[in-house]
Amino acid sequence: MCKKDTELQLQLLDKEELGKRLSRIKAAMEACGLDSILISDNANKFYITGRVFSGFIYYNIADQWPVYAVKRPTVLHDNRMCTIKKPENLAEILYDSTLCNAPTRLGMELNLCPYSQVLRIEKALPEVTVKDASAVMRQARSVKTPLQVVLMKESEERMTRVYKEIPGLYRPGMSDIELQIEIERALRLEGCLGQFRISGDEMELFMGSLLVGENSDTPSPYDFAMGGAGMHPSLPVGADGTLIRPNQPVMVDMNGNFNGYMVDMTRCYADGEVPQTVLSAHRLSCKIVAELTAMARPGVEAKALYERAYAMAVQAGLESYFMGHRQHAGFVGHGIGIEVNEAPVLAPRSRDILEAGNTIALEPKFVLPGHGAVGIENTILVKESGQAETLTTCPEDIIPLS
Amino acid sequence: MCKKDTELQLQLLDKEELGKRLSRIKAAMEACGLDSILISDNANKFYITGRVFSGFIYYNIADQWPVYAVKRPTVLHDNRMCTIKKPENLAEILYDSTLCNAPTRLGMELNLCPYSQVLRIEKALPEVTVKDASAVMRQARSVKTPLQVVLMKESEERMTRVYKEIPGLYRPGMSDIELQIEIERALRLEGCLGQFRISGDEMELFMGSLLVGENSDTPSPYDFAMGGAGMHPSLPVGADGTLIRPNQPVMVDMNGNFNGYMVDMTRCYADGEVPQTVLSAHRLSCKIVAELTAMARPGVEAKALYERAYAMAVQAGLESYFMGHRQHAGFVGHGIGIEVNEAPVLAPRSRDILEAGNTIALEPKFVLPGHGAVGIENTILVKESGQAETLTTCPEDIIPLS
Repeated sequence: MCKKDTELQLQLLDKEELGKRLSRIKAAMEACGLDSILISDNANKFYITGRVFSGFIYYNIADQWPVYAVKRPTVLHDNRMCTIKKPENLAEILYDSTLCNAPTRLGMELNLCPYSQVLRIEKALPEVTVKDASAVMRQARSVKTPLQVVLMKESEERMTRVYKEIPGLYRPGMSDIELQIEIERALRLEGCLGQFRISGDEMELFMGSLLVGENSDTPSPYDFAMGGAGMHPSLPVGADGTLIRPNQPVMVDMNGNFNGYMVDMTRCYADGEVPQTVLSAHRLSCKIVAELTAMARPGVEAKALYERAYAMAVQAGLESYFMGHRQHAGFVGHGIGIEVNEAPVLAPRSRDILEAGNTIALEPKFVLPGHGAVGIENTILVKESGQAETLTTCPEDIIPLS
Repeated sequence: MCKKDTELQLQLLDKEELGKRLSRIKAAMEACGLDSILISDNANKFYITGRVFSGFIYYNIADQWPVYAVKRPTVLHDNRMCTIKKPENLAEILYDSTLCNAPTRLGMELNLCPYSQVLRIEKALPEVTVKDASAVMRQARSVKTPLQVVLMKESEERMTRVYKEIPGLYRPGMSDIELQIEIERALRLEGCLGQFRISGDEMELFMGSLLVGENSDTPSPYDFAMGGAGMHPSLPVGADGTLIRPNQPVMVDMNGNFNGYMVDMTRCYADGEVPQTVLSAHRLSCKIVAELTAMARPGVEAKALYERAYAMAVQAGLESYFMGHRQHAGFVGHGIGIEVNEAPVLAPRSRDILEAGNTIALEPKFVLPGHGAVGIENTILVKESGQAETLTTCPEDIIPLS
């Protein structure tokens, strides 16, 4: 797993895999009228190269392969790589080198790239018209290649192994954070990288969330499905030190990143039987997940899945508790892969249309005042034909803690 | 430590503390010719409010207090807070409310704020001239108030407690990552929040770094003092699974964030005696830290500290190993507090001038091929008069692991 040979640093994706990803990027670029893109976001660089480096990737649709403008590590070189010290050095590479065609309508990640950086690049490349390529990369990344699915399944296998160990980590009298810390350690020993990649400046989370009791109903600043006060107002989300009591749901939604690709999986646990209302809401969550999994086929509108989930909550009289109680999340699922908030988004006003190769986390959860949070989250793979494949294999029932 | 009463969510900094911070912000704004600022970065919002929320802080120097434009949590309100759904709602608050004076020359964090977001705000506030306020916030935050120093000392005390426990966590035959995971758990049980706040899109780190052997010499894409291959090319920094051998330095540089404020502290450990060359380099690191601590007084140029450290490395014939070997970091220290890369920066071309209240991590480290990384990192507080105060209290010698 670890690379002793530093020459491996030079290794990028093999050309067949890179070709598949570039063809998706190229199609999205053509739809936006872009001849070239300049990528600086780590998640997007990882998508294109299979590794993270400091610098830029430039790709012109008239060229076969991208050019890598590398600031750091300083030893990373092959024949498509150039060293840069600052963004202004891009001009020499894009205009004066024989590595690539020069840009005209250049896409950049304007939703992510800081304003000052875009201005510097516009100034360094005065003949270029800069356009927004955020949607290009989002669209390209929303459909996974078979290799990406294999990597997600690898992460899932290791994550499920740990989720099954959780009852052995629990001791009566533990607080939410104490149990979470033991799960964190088990995940890390299993190879979890810990890093939770999320798109968006305001989003932060450390290693996942474990919720019990009234804390589940504490609104958070972050746009996650569930809230929680957290251990400190500098990071107000998740476990807050609440004691885990018997007969209460314990919702575990931890980090599943073992190789740069994540699955998202939530399971509930309990020390003893939970009350009937909790059990009913949990079963409804499982039913909604099953229903959405059956609906998730190419061509289906993402918002139709949200509407179906909401309708099922209404039918059960549980809409006040659906996706939160004091504060409601505005979605029931989201694309997942390199980041936890990829396309498609399953939300009322989403314009996303499902495609084969989408990997989607479905998380219809309920917050029941006086009880806590219940429900499950599965990651599914939308297939060309037939029902979507459920990637998360841990049993869905509430799992006994002892 | 955890907040059971959700009413506490409304709590912001007390007015005396907020006043101190605003007076620093105001002075920096006046120096830049700004009448108002609009803040959206989480670290800057935490600086001004003592908590994180989704939304904006608007402050006009003609007003006594800021206005908080809150998107989420939806229940967060007091008489200076307004609810917004999107950036365009700012126009109503800034122009039509009685809460504040309208902006003219408006500062925004243009080094951090995505290009698209700045454009939306410019469009929503057409009468405004948007200017860069990145330096304003960086300058304001570089000098800590007495309360901020107290919070950093609290973090330090808990961090040092864990650093002293490390020998008890070590078992012969462990790999670097196995020892790191036990340290992570001990830190978390001590109350560490885990989150490593770093300014800059390209910067990522999970919970810190533990380096042994040749891995210490692996260049990384990130602008940290030290590198390491990491466990996967998606997060190529730090421990890579190398076995910890006897008589070898083990460099521990972990996360010290217990309350939103961090100290930075590196210590070296070893199972048995290290070779004389390693010991000499370690002692030189301690000497450089002592020398820079003595030099760090108000009015001193930050680059003078870098130059002195480098000169000491040259004098010892160790300049090839100073701040890395195959790849060299370009600094010997950095401001620290809410984020790990605050002002001042101790680097050859830094223009920063030290001020009383700066908290600076000094980390003159050496990477010795065939041995690994050695040296220490202390966090110091620059005082109005007299020598800087060392905030990190763990013993500086190489600590025996068994």
